[in-house]
Amino acid sequence: MNYNYINVTFESKALANKQYIRRKENRNCGGKTRTSLNKDIIEKVSQKARISEGKEGVRRILREIYRNEQIGTKELSYITRLPVPVVAAVRAELEKIGLVSRKGGAMLTEDGKKYAENVLGFRIKKSLICPLCLGRKVIIKDEFQEILEKMKKYANLRPKPYTWLDQAFCTPETSILRALFMLEEGDAEGRKIIFLGDDDLTSIATGLLKASKRITVVDVDERLLNLIDKISEYERISIECIHHDLRDPLPRELINKFDVAFTDPPYTITGMKLFVSRGIDALKKRRCASIYLSFAHKPPEDMLNLQAAISEMGLFIREMIPRFNVYEGAEIFANTTFLAKLETTDKTCPSIHGRFDGKIYTGEVSPTVRMYRCRCGRIIRVGVGGEFKTIEELKTYGCPECRRKEGFKLIERKRLFFSE
Amino acid sequence: MNYNYINVTFESKALANKQYIRRKENRNCGGKTRTSLNKDIIEKVSQKARISEGKEGVRRILREIYRNEQIGTKELSYITRLPVPVVAAVRAELEKIGLVSRKGGAMLTEDGKKYAENVLGFRIKKSLICPLCLGRKVIIKDEFQEILEKMKKYANLRPKPYTWLDQAFCTPETSILRALFMLEEGDAEGRKIIFLGDDDLTSIATGLLKASKRITVVDVDERLLNLIDKISEYERISIECIHHDLRDPLPRELINKFDVAFTDPPYTITGMKLFVSRGIDALKKRRCASIYLSFAHKPPEDMLNLQAAISEMGLFIREMIPRFNVYEGAEIFANTTFLAKLETTDKTCPSIHGRFDGKIYTGEVSPTVRMYRCRCGRIIRVGVGGEFKTIEELKTYGCPECRRKEGFKLIERKRLFFSE
Repeated sequence: MNYNYINVTFESKALANKQYIRRKENRNCGGKTRTSLNKDIIEKVSQKARISEGKEGVRRILREIYRNEQIGTKELSYITRLPVPVVAAVRAELEKIGLVSRKGGAMLTEDGKKYAENVLGFRIKKSLICPLCLGRKVIIKDEFQEILEKMKKYANLRPKPYTWLDQAFCTPETSILRALFMLEEGDAEGRKIIFLGDDDLTSIATGLLKASKRITVVDVDERLLNLIDKISEYERISIECIHHDLRDPLPRELINKFDVAFTDPPYTITGMKLFVSRGIDALKKRRCASIYLSFAHKPPEDMLNLQAAISEMGLFIREMIPRFNVYEGAEIFANTTFLAKLETTDKTCPSIHGRFDGKIYTGEVSPTVRMYRCRCGRIIRVGVGGEFKTIEELKTYGCPECRRKEGFKLIERKRLFFSE
Repeated sequence: MNYNYINVTFESKALANKQYIRRKENRNCGGKTRTSLNKDIIEKVSQKARISEGKEGVRRILREIYRNEQIGTKELSYITRLPVPVVAAVRAELEKIGLVSRKGGAMLTEDGKKYAENVLGFRIKKSLICPLCLGRKVIIKDEFQEILEKMKKYANLRPKPYTWLDQAFCTPETSILRALFMLEEGDAEGRKIIFLGDDDLTSIATGLLKASKRITVVDVDERLLNLIDKISEYERISIECIHHDLRDPLPRELINKFDVAFTDPPYTITGMKLFVSRGIDALKKRRCASIYLSFAHKPPEDMLNLQAAISEMGLFIREMIPRFNVYEGAEIFANTTFLAKLETTDKTCPSIHGRFDGKIYTGEVSPTVRMYRCRCGRIIRVGVGGEFKTIEELKTYGCPECRRKEGFKLIERKRLFFSE
């Protein structure tokens, strides 16, 4: 899951721009087309909402509201591949200027419809995406329904995600679709497959196909390994579980032994480089091997850096499917990531060798800073560079101004970015 | 279309390796499992057939024969994304060692089935690809069938492809699917779109959606522009046609004017760089704009170079769909290419500026040499370094030996490679 690029003011509503409110009042006073209804609006909204994708991101949100007529924030986030708080912030701005109203979901106002059709040129309401596979290429045919039922059962046994390890569980459907995708690509039958981290139990879904020669899971979380081990034993699918921190090089017995690698790494460039480098180490030395990579829909510059890093490792993208992976319980983040099939070439080489001590988890690379307001009015920064490291610490020592130990209101949360 | 990496001797059958024939004879003499039925076989076949994808390519072909039970060479080529002559060469080698037989299509022999199941581990016969969209994500809904019918009609009006311009016409279905893909992605409605080359009439399909603000086609082939112009006038879809060689910079009035660029460039890295660079020039200067790129399924190292070149231009791949585009009449070449949606970033910059005089067409970068046999027995080389530049020239002047002007038999075709 992508815990990145969030920079949203929780109080944005309360801090509403006066100019905007004035505009809204003008709108309520008369039905005339206002001159402000031009292309610049979405640019301004994008600035207010601080959205990395700029006005194109705002246009995308407006388009999906137009196409769906009434749509909730989480669904909007899924369709637009933008994080929920970003979508919420844009929607709030669009509400302020009277283009969107909220009635059990975002809807366009009459002005909003005019703007969407006359200024942005929207007119087609239906989705053109294949209703059968939803753009995922593979489908779960009848003979695999049984595996899906099993995966649903096993998904409930997963322990609580360790968010500091960037764990987030994908849906049982996603696990089986990943396995079927590998199967379709010729990367399951007769193959030796290594999973570099597997909080999603994709190894189980792949094992249940009973087609592969060897399935190995390497993970730092023993709780997950124990679960996979138990299910594997119960289902007799012989999954090999290895407790290992991928910051350390792979154990020698896993080097050059696999045909296929699969990973859903921490969603930082360094995290991807590290996990994919270990994947390359695990592959038998030959070209045309596959590495399956799940990764977050990041803002443009991050996507560029990500793909440059992939090229630098001598890998290329054979196929890339946005929104392939859907995650459970990821309430405030866009709960979908892409699946890419990478392939090796004669030039493939890991970019990280040996032990790695750098930052790989999103919590390390882009830590969160929270701003609280005490009842006395004092603003207190908590987290990196703040007066207190955690909210618990603040509550222990109390407000530096009035010494109150409770009643702090979260007014802003920011992700900080260090260049990786 | 990919006219690249073909280097196949048409007479390979006649030159069959004696060792192979001996093995086949041994096989016919007894039913014992031969020690030769091991993993090395596919490695050896890949060397004999000179396939860039190595044993993975041979495995892919065997797997599709296994899954489809009986399959023709062209269909095999489509499914495996390998050129027809490569598939034919591999199949011929597999026939020689007795794994494949040919009865109205390639089939596995009993030995072949054993090898596929016991050595390679194949067992699942069905395709898992979505039967509705065939993995293309979008479908042609009922309301667009009318456009498809029109495209079928207009496709018949296209002039004969100029192969030296790397022209090859995609099917009417492909044209409309491309337009629908852009529509789904929010890149048709209200957009200004530039087509950098359009021998496929995708501009017409897009125009027939009647959703875009401006559609401009830039092409060097006046025949195509005339046709697009006529259809555009008849359909009242106002497509702007501009006769221009993209080796020259875009005319000033096209610079920074478009939201979206679409190109199916010559299938050389330089060709891609040039056409995409012109596309970047045409876009309004902003991030998050889309460039749609169709390109051949190239061997691994070429794919790597291609994507490194894309990264270097500050573009990233948002989505990549193999086999999206299907071409007509491409008899001996793999008649399918991928469609990638590229997106711009703050770092996007053309890699080619100003007039470009380098080689961009496959015929320039990897020219073809054809060997013909005259009825008198004389072998005549046609093409680069040959006695004649083209077959037309040979037919005009006649055989250097006997002066016959017809009845030349093509016995070999080779692609020569110059480093780009």
